Amino acid sequence: MSVSTIETILDPRSVAIVGASDELNKWGGSMLALLRKFQFGGRIFPVNPRRTEVQGLPAFPSVQAIPEPVDVALIAVPNERAIDAVRDCASAGVKAVLMVTSQFAESGEAGRGLQEKLVEIARAAGMRIIGPNCMGYFSSHADLCLLNSQALMRNAVLHKGDIALISQSGALAGTMLARAYDIGTSFSFCVSLGNQADLEVCDFLEYAIADPRTRVISLYIEGLKNPRRFLGLLREASARGKPVLLTKAGRTDSGQRAVQSHTASMAGAYQSFSASVRHAGAVIVDDPLELIVQSATWARLPAPASDGVGVFSGSGGGGAVASDIVDESGLRAAVLTDTTVQSLAALMPAGAAHLPFDIGSVPDTYRTDGDWLHKVLATMMADDNVGAGVFVLTTQPDMTGAAEKVVAFNRESPKPLLFVNAASSCADAAVAKLQAAGLPYFASIQEAIRYLDNRLAYARRAALDDTSEAHRLPAARVDEVTRGLHAGLVPEHQAKQLLSAAGIPVTDGEIAVSAEQAVQVARKIGFPLVMKVVSAQISHKSDIGGVALNVRDEAGVIDRFDALKAAAANVPGAVFDGCLVQKMARADAELLVGTHWDAQFGPLLTFGFGGTLVELHRDTALLPAGAGRKAIAQALAKLRQYPLLQGYRGRAPADVDAIVDVIHSMGQLAEHLGERLAECEANPVMVHGNTILVADARAVWKEEE
Amino acid sequence: MSVSTIETILDPRSVAIVGASDELNKWGGSMLALLRKFQFGGRIFPVNPRRTEVQGLPAFPSVQAIPEPVDVALIAVPNERAIDAVRDCASAGVKAVLMVTSQFAESGEAGRGLQEKLVEIARAAGMRIIGPNCMGYFSSHADLCLLNSQALMRNAVLHKGDIALISQSGALAGTMLARAYDIGTSFSFCVSLGNQADLEVCDFLEYAIADPRTRVISLYIEGLKNPRRFLGLLREASARGKPVLLTKAGRTDSGQRAVQSHTASMAGAYQSFSASVRHAGAVIVDDPLELIVQSATWARLPAPASDGVGVFSGSGGGGAVASDIVDESGLRAAVLTDTTVQSLAALMPAGAAHLPFDIGSVPDTYRTDGDWLHKVLATMMADDNVGAGVFVLTTQPDMTGAAEKVVAFNRESPKPLLFVNAASSCADAAVAKLQAAGLPYFASIQEAIRYLDNRLAYARRAALDDTSEAHRLPAARVDEVTRGLHAGLVPEHQAKQLLSAAGIPVTDGEIAVSAEQAVQVARKIGFPLVMKVVSAQISHKSDIGGVALNVRDEAGVIDRFDALKAAAANVPGAVFDGCLVQKMARADAELLVGTHWDAQFGPLLTFGFGGTLVELHRDTALLPAGAGRKAIAQALAKLRQYPLLQGYRGRAPADVDAIVDVIHSMGQLAEHLGERLAECEANPVMVHGNTILVADARAVWKEEE
Repeated sequence: MSVSTIETILDPRSVAIVGASDELNKWGGSMLALLRKFQFGGRIFPVNPRRTEVQGLPAFPSVQAIPEPVDVALIAVPNERAIDAVRDCASAGVKAVLMVTSQFAESGEAGRGLQEKLVEIARAAGMRIIGPNCMGYFSSHADLCLLNSQALMRNAVLHKGDIALISQSGALAGTMLARAYDIGTSFSFCVSLGNQADLEVCDFLEYAIADPRTRVISLYIEGLKNPRRFLGLLREASARGKPVLLTKAGRTDSGQRAVQSHTASMAGAYQSFSASVRHAGAVIVDDPLELIVQSATWARLPAPASDGVGVFSGSGGGGAVASDIVDESGLRAAVLTDTTVQSLAALMPAGAAHLPFDIGSVPDTYRTDGDWLHKVLATMMADDNVGAGVFVLTTQPDMTGAAEKVVAFNRESPKPLLFVNAASSCADAAVAKLQAAGLPYFASIQEAIRYLDNRLAYARRAALDDTSEAHRLPAARVDEVTRGLHAGLVPEHQAKQLLSAAGIPVTDGEIAVSAEQAVQVARKIGFPLVMKVVSAQISHKSDIGGVALNVRDEAGVIDRFDALKAAAANVPGAVFDGCLVQKMARADAELLVGTHWDAQFGPLLTFGFGGTLVELHRDTALLPAGAGRKAIAQALAKLRQYPLLQGYRGRAPADVDAIVDVIHSMGQLAEHLGERLAECEANPVMVHGNTILVADARAVWKEEE
Repeated sequence: MSVSTIETILDPRSVAIVGASDELNKWGGSMLALLRKFQFGGRIFPVNPRRTEVQGLPAFPSVQAIPEPVDVALIAVPNERAIDAVRDCASAGVKAVLMVTSQFAESGEAGRGLQEKLVEIARAAGMRIIGPNCMGYFSSHADLCLLNSQALMRNAVLHKGDIALISQSGALAGTMLARAYDIGTSFSFCVSLGNQADLEVCDFLEYAIADPRTRVISLYIEGLKNPRRFLGLLREASARGKPVLLTKAGRTDSGQRAVQSHTASMAGAYQSFSASVRHAGAVIVDDPLELIVQSATWARLPAPASDGVGVFSGSGGGGAVASDIVDESGLRAAVLTDTTVQSLAALMPAGAAHLPFDIGSVPDTYRTDGDWLHKVLATMMADDNVGAGVFVLTTQPDMTGAAEKVVAFNRESPKPLLFVNAASSCADAAVAKLQAAGLPYFASIQEAIRYLDNRLAYARRAALDDTSEAHRLPAARVDEVTRGLHAGLVPEHQAKQLLSAAGIPVTDGEIAVSAEQAVQVARKIGFPLVMKVVSAQISHKSDIGGVALNVRDEAGVIDRFDALKAAAANVPGAVFDGCLVQKMARADAELLVGTHWDAQFGPLLTFGFGGTLVELHRDTALLPAGAGRKAIAQALAKLRQYPLLQGYRGRAPADVDAIVDVIHSMGQLAEHLGERLAECEANPVMVHGNTILVADARAVWKEEE
């Protein structure tokens, strides 16, 4: 349903401008002027009770006074008149209002009340709202411009393009449009959403996914109204092969405060956001201007064939710097094959035939025709080791000619050749050639490399598709265990029962309430042993001396029992419920596998290298709990200590598949239990060759409401 | 001596152009034209045996034919005529030749021979060489331009400035000049050095340090000819308060290959370079264009007063994004004090009076005069929490006015307000205001933040000065131990003797050659024990099962002795020399402290968190071995696992001063022994409360040559 609403908004038959003015420094003046400048084909109705004519068009005292149906009404009146204007629109049967007026939820309590009123009036009338506190939108294919930005005022034409830009911030949208203009990029539509009182990112994202004129979707997000719907749409876009690139503000504490006062957005934890949206297929770009360059390049050029980057420059130094940046990024600076070097013999001396290629190092005698550079580029780019090229333009003779060659090359090439302008305004004429050809260029080598890195990662993630995996969780056994759980901290032995029910192997053990009983358990299990305090009040046992490792004989059991009891007695308010006596598991590596419920994104899965120093080592990955085995295996392999699982320095190689199974089962458990399982953490999970055993676990259980 | 040579080069009375031409697409044509365009006041002598006049000036058949003394001769003839030209200059008594001709050492074996010939001729005549394979230099205060770059050809004036740019790459120098032009920055002099056959970075650096017209020094380096001299000069610059910023190419394997074929430079290990030059006071910037912006800003604006960054923007979204970037960088997004908020009451509604400041959020009614923005900037920047400001220009009304306000503010302010142009070409008129005022602007928020970060780190390092520390190494004891060392791998017990002689505490232990003897040692030392294989052929004992921890009784000693002997027997070629029996040290943290001799930079000191997983954790710091205690303490505190030394999760806090002493002593040991101590590594160093003990050590000893 919202798709057809958005269609009406982006291609309306008629637009009313409430607060229309002749003064171009007022919103109702500049927006009317922009709408007319780009020759909108539908009907335009200025509304102004004090005027009979505005900017030469007949004006109406109210929207209700307009004798024809109005699809979209722009409301550009001061805050105190906004509610009346919305009432007028609702009564007139307007389909959607675009509310640029501010001082609503972003300004505090009073504004929040006003915004609620706004929504109430609109809902009752079946009318939709964009904004408030936004700067409008444009739809190039409908020649419709209702976006108030300096970035559009300088243009004579509203260029038609294939990128959809959906932004909570209006001023940032304008800034992104300015960069897009410089790199010759245009949009299918662009909308700024402000406070998202009604229509929100998801509504326009859904439309953009279905829109055949949109090839790439760019989002600037401060906060999500409906994270689950958002993730679903990202998955849909991914399934349809339509890339979604986004920048998220409010990643840090300072950023969160800023977005709260900017568009009243609640940002939530950024780590959860990034793990969830990346897994759903979105590409995250940290900077909004880079978002535009990356989106534009994505729309215009083919994907890199591999991570081998061929560097071309007019400067040997520029080539060296670029090679360093490529290597440091984790991509590979390509080296030409012997075959390519041989086929370059006619084009340059042998000493010059290598990457990074220094154009300036070839004597003029070799440049016998105007096609020389094109031949060099084509020969080197065709090399199997080169997956993509980066042309770093430094100050050199004939920069314009070089730019033209890069444009021409990209017209036919199955591999992208990115252009970096390192020559600043010296290259103004050269970049004008790129701009005219609609070929985006980059402001720095780093920017170009980040694009390649993102696009390669996107392809790798797409290749991971494991959505069809069977769900193997023994749900009935799990449910039986959960019936015995009480709200709050779940003690170790119960947490292990839960994991065991989910098919995750745990260390054997029993609770002993006396030293004598501990000895009996020890005889049954065999030495060496681990003994741990059991107390519902003690969560981090090792921090209070509540764990005894490597207990080797019966005397030790008695000694340690007393010591653990004493340790518990030292913790104010803790009740000593005995000791858990367990076989001591050997470990070549200690892992952590955990899950927690995120209010926005549901259950998330943390896994990696654990033990008591897990917070110092910070060597864990975060994925949605529903992640499949391939995604888990890929994330695990990226961890710093991963070699520990591969037979590092004399250790037995671990059964990585079995580890992935344990992590996957934890995720399935969290998916099954939903928000009742607030937290669950197995740490350490002892890995020794093929053996994987959860040695300790804790959970936090929440009653169903 | 070289300073006066450089003075002659930068301010010559006369210049000969060998290979002078009327054709401007030839080097001898364009460079003569540039020299004349900028109105060099000295004598100019074109040299061309086939012409009597070049570009309207009388030409000479050879340099020797010139009837006056020649200070500098530019040689711009083809490679095959270069040697003859140099001979001519030498015979004529030229002080220095500028050799732009290429195809010397950078092109392979034959070129290397030619370059040696060049140097030989010059040395014999007492003549100096810049290049070969460079693009020349300019000296603005002498109106002398001998740099062949597109970046200068568009200019009518050779602007005088206070930054010295010394670059191995000529084309990159041009690229840096282009960026400098855009941001209104000029240079005292700029030299490209190419292959550095004779004069090199250090010669010009030495001059720049002494030059009163140079305030900031910028270097682009591919390889160093004399690393020790370079470090000494950096220290001198630091002591004189003259900042040196540099970009180094050849940081990675690909970059190293590139610089080798570009200027025949050998890059060496980048980690050693960066640790050494940073400690000597240089600022490293990874990108040459950022190098220019940072140098320019450094020369023009005061240092930040603190790491609190005040963000100003015309877009709430831009402010949010900038706040995120600040927080992510490790600086702090500043929050205004209540006092400042109160004094803003007349300037804006209470809801707007916060950072990041969104200029667009203030209603027009508050902007009663043209000074409004200046008042806002001045009030917020004066806040104690704000150490520096960042003004992010997004597309907004009156961008030019905003730029003017930032220029005016910086004229008087004791704190810097950096300007970021996020509005692309929409802001062309605005950035022209900055350019005209010589106020550098940044291309991205990240670029601005990296500058602040570098400048703050520079101030912190300067505050560390600990050069006057007493050298406490007991050298006589150390020398006695070294007399017993043989070349090659030094076994553990000898390595420990060396450390012990240097005042570093090591675990007690003795070598036992039989199980019976091991038991006797064990009785003397007491349990628990560690036992380790002793074999000159086995370096990494734990990898081959050559270490037994936690041996608790005599039966265990016998059992383990046999096991270790068997483990040694499994290593091909290893001779079993017995077992080292030691007291087992407890550890809350295991450190690594090591040193190695770097062929370029001398002894370097590695320290951090150790144990067998040191290579996976990568949690170590690298400093020159001569680093003082403050620098060591600061680097140690930055390590990820540092909290382990501060009483993390129930551990006893460690004696950090004593740890710093151990590290410092290791550095002093390495400084004292020089290149004879090729390597030395103590790992693990067991830390438990106030106890610090080296539990294992190895070294590699080199005979004196």
